[in-house]
Amino acid sequence: MDAEEEASWLDALRLAMPAETVTPFRALGDEARQRAEIAIVANPDPSDIAALPKLAFVHSLWAGVERLVSELGPGAPPIVRLVDPSMGRVMAEAVLAWTHYLQRDMPAYARQQREHRWAPLPYRKPESMIVGLLGLGALGAAAAARLLDAGFRVAGWSRSPKALPGVETFTGDEGLAALLSKSDVVVCLLPLTAATRDLLDARRLAEMKPDAALINFGRGPIVVAADLIRALDEEKLSHAVLDVFDKEPLDQASPFWAHPNVTVLPHITAPTDHATAAAVVASSVRDFRLTGRIPGHVDLTRGY
Amino acid sequence: MDAEEEASWLDALRLAMPAETVTPFRALGDEARQRAEIAIVANPDPSDIAALPKLAFVHSLWAGVERLVSELGPGAPPIVRLVDPSMGRVMAEAVLAWTHYLQRDMPAYARQQREHRWAPLPYRKPESMIVGLLGLGALGAAAAARLLDAGFRVAGWSRSPKALPGVETFTGDEGLAALLSKSDVVVCLLPLTAATRDLLDARRLAEMKPDAALINFGRGPIVVAADLIRALDEEKLSHAVLDVFDKEPLDQASPFWAHPNVTVLPHITAPTDHATAAAVVASSVRDFRLTGRIPGHVDLTRGY
Ligand SMILES: NC(=O)c1ccc[n+]([C@@H]2O[C@H](COP(=O)([O-])OP(=O)(O)OC[C@H]3O[C@@H](n4cnc5c(N)ncnc54)[C@H](OP(=O)(O)O)[C@@H]3O)[C@@H](O)[C@H]2O)c1
Ligand SMILES: NC(=O)c1ccc[n+]([C@@H]2O[C@H](COP(=O)([O-])OP(=O)(O)OC[C@H]3O[C@@H](n4cnc5c(N)ncnc54)[C@H](OP(=O)(O)O)[C@@H]3O)[C@@H](O)[C@H]2O)c1
Repeated sequence: MDAEEEASWLDALRLAMPAETVTPFRALGDEARQRAEIAIVANPDPSDIAALPKLAFVHSLWAGVERLVSELGPGAPPIVRLVDPSMGRVMAEAVLAWTHYLQRDMPAYARQQREHRWAPLPYRKPESMIVGLLGLGALGAAAAARLLDAGFRVAGWSRSPKALPGVETFTGDEGLAALLSKSDVVVCLLPLTAATRDLLDARRLAEMKPDAALINFGRGPIVVAADLIRALDEEKLSHAVLDVFDKEPLDQASPFWAHPNVTVLPHITAPTDHATAAAVVASSVRDFRLTGRIPGHVDLTRGY
Repeated sequence: MDAEEEASWLDALRLAMPAETVTPFRALGDEARQRAEIAIVANPDPSDIAALPKLAFVHSLWAGVERLVSELGPGAPPIVRLVDPSMGRVMAEAVLAWTHYLQRDMPAYARQQREHRWAPLPYRKPESMIVGLLGLGALGAAAAARLLDAGFRVAGWSRSPKALPGVETFTGDEGLAALLSKSDVVVCLLPLTAATRDLLDARRLAEMKPDAALINFGRGPIVVAADLIRALDEEKLSHAVLDVFDKEPLDQASPFWAHPNVTVLPHITAPTDHATAAAVVASSVRDFRLTGRIPGHVDLTRGY
């Protein structure tokens, strides 16, 4: 995190919890390190966390904590990830915007424009399309509501069974196959864990409906990049909108950049709002001060 | 209209009003021509209309009737245009989809992808943007509701004063200047009339907020094409999404095709749905049979 971003976070956090002392790690004296009870982090150096013996929990400023989980390891204090309802709204908006991008054939019209070609394509009603969400957590559930509101049919897949009004829900291996085979657009909003890494490989991509599109807003390694490229090259899938990648920034050598049926985004679909995120952190901290309760945190065996 | 489209319309209209005799003009005998009471038309030959002396009204299958109005002239029967609520929904969806296209910087990210450039741009909340609608009729009002629902601020301009919940409304010359100067995205949903032809010329485009974008879903000649190109070249406006043009299909020679800050669409934002449109026509016809009332029709002095 650069100095400007750090300053903005410090401002936001201090404003949100005036009763607390919020200090950057490098400004903590030896004694303060012995006393610090809560670490609020982005991508901390694991040795910094280890240097704080009294931590009750580590609060991430990010929604995705796969890196924290793997770097801090099993001995670390409980890891609390950011669940900011206003991020849910922003992600739901992104899912809707990019689903319309596909439904309204924006990639095809851009191609036709480059060829100076005037060719109306058939309009697809939202009611005639199924959007399949992988992940029905904070972000997936918000996206489902927004898509339903716009008239799309919505299916969803999660680890534990879910009942969401208007959404056809699935679990398990066979549930995933069923969802993939019926969805016109598949949107990945899964966390990266041992179970989701490489989930969408050649076999799974082959289960998708012919000509369907994929949106990955979860994490890069959930999709096997080479398998996705092959499915696009063989025109089994029509398009992929990718916001997340195995390595970010995306490698200059990646075939995604120049692929005609790939839209590359620089991890921007649901940026963190410092003010609303700081308010969420503050409310966890306040609750901890009043009750001693540690906020809902990552289950290390599930990995999220 | 080609044979396939004609057949589809005939099917839809016959299904929607089984009590009526629906016959293509060229299949009408001399006697039937003397008796025909209602003409249902797309772009008819004016002499065909003149050959039907008993017409109570001419019902257009299109929402925009500028060509009918000018070709049939003042002596023609009343012209009824298509007002199909399901078209309002489709247009509102298009306005939202293409507003998100601009808000979410899709053109800029496409450019960056071509340059293999990873560069997150600041996220703009809908609440921080004003979408200015030119025209608050059937389509403009539907678009306003959908944009408000998505969190955008909405302003609107119409001939007669309007009160729409949540929309800041304007009329007249000064009202237009006020709306243009505050809107981040201006969406044209006006009909083409003597008063709206060439409305958005160099002077009006210069009144727009620096870096604002224009969406034209109304009619091509409302915007002066050369003036728009100049405003884009001089980077006074950031982008234009154009679905309608002076001549359609758009001329191969048009500078719009290759302009980096123009999105060309082949008049597809709100296609007519034959089934719902036929139901709207049928309900007008039924009402006329029962009451003799001619449905709301074009005011030839206003031109819409
Ligand atoms: N691109 C961006 O800008 C951006 C921004 C924020 C977040 N993200 C990503 O989005 C992810 C999801 O965020 P969230 O807040 O919605 O997380 P969340 O509330 O923890 O939800 C995760 C969902 O995934 C499901 N899931 C997890 N492992 C699964 C498995 N093995 N099989 C089936 N379903 C599984 C969970 O099922 P259960 O409901 O049964 O637990 C849950 O429905 C984050 O982890 C992060 O990687 C991306
Ligand atoms: N791109 C597409 O696919 C597509 C599809 C359908 C329609 N369209 C176009 O969209 C147009 C609008 O359709 P609609 O059904 O919304 O029409 P409408 O219900 O007649 O509404 C027209 C609106 O424009 C306003 N207006 C007209 N002349 C004006 C002037 N000189 N100054 C200020 N405001 C003026 C009207 O003001 P008042 O409210 O005061 O009357 C009204 O609010 C159609 O005429 C057609 O050209 C395009």
